[in-house]
Amino acid sequence: MRVNGAQYRTVWLENGVVKMIDQPKLPHAFSIASLRTCEETAQAIRVMVVRGAGAIGAAAGFAMAQAALAAQTKSREEFGRSVEQAAALVRKTRPTAQNLFYAVERVLGATNGLEPEKAARAAVVEAQAIADEDASACQKIGEHGEALLEKKTRMLTHCNAGWLAFVDWGSALSPVYAAQRSGKAPFVWVDETRPRCQGAALTSWELGQEGVRHAIIADNAAGFFFSRGEVDIAIVGADRIAANGDVANKIGTYEKALLAREHGVPFYVAAPLSTIDFGCPDGGAIPIEERGEDEVLYASGLLDSGTQGRVRLAPKGASARNPAFDVTPAKLIAGIITPYGVVKPSRLRDAVPSRRQALSGPARTR
Amino acid sequence: MRVNGAQYRTVWLENGVVKMIDQPKLPHAFSIASLRTCEETAQAIRVMVVRGAGAIGAAAGFAMAQAALAAQTKSREEFGRSVEQAAALVRKTRPTAQNLFYAVERVLGATNGLEPEKAARAAVVEAQAIADEDASACQKIGEHGEALLEKKTRMLTHCNAGWLAFVDWGSALSPVYAAQRSGKAPFVWVDETRPRCQGAALTSWELGQEGVRHAIIADNAAGFFFSRGEVDIAIVGADRIAANGDVANKIGTYEKALLAREHGVPFYVAAPLSTIDFGCPDGGAIPIEERGEDEVLYASGLLDSGTQGRVRLAPKGASARNPAFDVTPAKLIAGIITPYGVVKPSRLRDAVPSRRQALSGPARTR
Repeated sequence: MRVNGAQYRTVWLENGVVKMIDQPKLPHAFSIASLRTCEETAQAIRVMVVRGAGAIGAAAGFAMAQAALAAQTKSREEFGRSVEQAAALVRKTRPTAQNLFYAVERVLGATNGLEPEKAARAAVVEAQAIADEDASACQKIGEHGEALLEKKTRMLTHCNAGWLAFVDWGSALSPVYAAQRSGKAPFVWVDETRPRCQGAALTSWELGQEGVRHAIIADNAAGFFFSRGEVDIAIVGADRIAANGDVANKIGTYEKALLAREHGVPFYVAAPLSTIDFGCPDGGAIPIEERGEDEVLYASGLLDSGTQGRVRLAPKGASARNPAFDVTPAKLIAGIITPYGVVKPSRLRDAVPSRRQALSGPARTR
Repeated sequence: MRVNGAQYRTVWLENGVVKMIDQPKLPHAFSIASLRTCEETAQAIRVMVVRGAGAIGAAAGFAMAQAALAAQTKSREEFGRSVEQAAALVRKTRPTAQNLFYAVERVLGATNGLEPEKAARAAVVEAQAIADEDASACQKIGEHGEALLEKKTRMLTHCNAGWLAFVDWGSALSPVYAAQRSGKAPFVWVDETRPRCQGAALTSWELGQEGVRHAIIADNAAGFFFSRGEVDIAIVGADRIAANGDVANKIGTYEKALLAREHGVPFYVAAPLSTIDFGCPDGGAIPIEERGEDEVLYASGLLDSGTQGRVRLAPKGASARNPAFDVTPAKLIAGIITPYGVVKPSRLRDAVPSRRQALSGPARTR
């Protein structure tokens, strides 16, 4: 997507160097981190220079490619030991990121049985394919989702399910970017999304760079605009979707879904297939991470001095609770926007091609 | 109520000097402002050293008493001119504060037809009565509301409708203080209440000083705790109550009321009679103030350096919308807790004694 008028992805491989947008510096500064080795890239994943399932997966794939490139002049045995060590290192960086494990296995698999030099080339090709597939899946989400947006639709979103969380395009924001490019001039209500304010910081920044009209609102203010009839549709991302269509997403999503139902506004969830967990029967089975209380007791951002810092909101000695996600029941969701089309949450299994089909094409017709 | 173990009101008159808790410094510092003249007190009201309908009304009454005391040695004509000038000054400080006008008129009325020295004494007595009536009304709200709280009830509240907004006790928090003193050990979920964070700053501070168990949560997190069955009751304050029982209160209140209905949790509004506007037919007729966008684009609090400051959350050039209140429809409200008891919102007019009765006793029985 566009940054200062130029095209970027969140993460890419350039002559063996992994480059990524340094996300903790956003929205106050835009810079590109250059990681020269697998170890440096793994460290960048660990400290969240890159974040979001799709972007983490691509970064992990590229880190593995870097390890393969570094070992390509070694013996076959040493090559194997090196990439296995790299895989162990990358797997440890973010232990709950599903896409990360998937990417590591795919790149390892691509090197299997090949001579080191050929294996390294195959690793680069496979890592690039992982990144390209992520971008392509998100672009398809945008094509399907765009059909839900009329001219000048006023859409509400929560948190950041934009391109910064993927390789390109994003999930919930991909339909907005498609609509913007086809001249529909959408408008987005951006929930600030306390406590980490990914809406105010990242979603607003993304939309501004693409020239999409939007306004940030306190999370508390969504109900006001729903009750005034100023919200036409809501689209959010997802952290995990259970088999019955229940959706775990950033804390506060559930309240927005209740508001949407109360006001007859359709509420959609946009996500790639990797977000759907058919092994999880319903929302009650999704574990909810509770994070440290300082995120609630403080707010972080840019100080008047121009450096990043924080302010304490609460009195000394106060304590807070900080669940990071909540579960929106399937009954509140009008549809899940996937790369394969928009499906009812209750029909997830029927509507989405099986993994085998998705990877190998229309097997049944053979 | 208690601060550092001692008893305080938010505002009081001491030997002709108005004293008030300096609220902009809370919760990070506790100090008392001393205002020696009517002009100083008016300025303190204007810059919001004191805030909240009940506390503003009491401060305005005391400011008028100061003006009368300062003019008590003047001629009758000059006394009249002085207190009328003071009234004009005080009325201009917060032009939408209903209680302020009421207090100014009451103190002016008390001086009517009296010699300056007697008039000054009458003004002090009347101003003190206004403050005492506010404290007493809030205490009665607490008595009626306490009956709704069981042992260890987990109550949710929004914004600050505590004693800092009144002279003492508060509205939504008064039942909590009553329950705490009767040994019921209540627990309060405190919405931080962006954008001004009165929950995280003021409600948490009040509850901490009274030793009430509580946890601050991001406004987004209420739905999570409702869905886990960890909220037994919700009580909030009100900025204005329409004749049909619709309630305007701090932005975000409406979303909490929807959550309460969805989870079968009773949602109450606590307010003194002055909050009820029988001239306003329903919530649609209540004007909603929209405040400046900087409250949303920034967060204010205590810097690591120990001084107060702010951080910018949003990118340069971003814009925000900032409605300060929303309307909760009467149908979502289980009851209004008034000094005269708990009434259904649809029965407001029947259940509350008329102004004439309230001021002059049971007229109909004569």
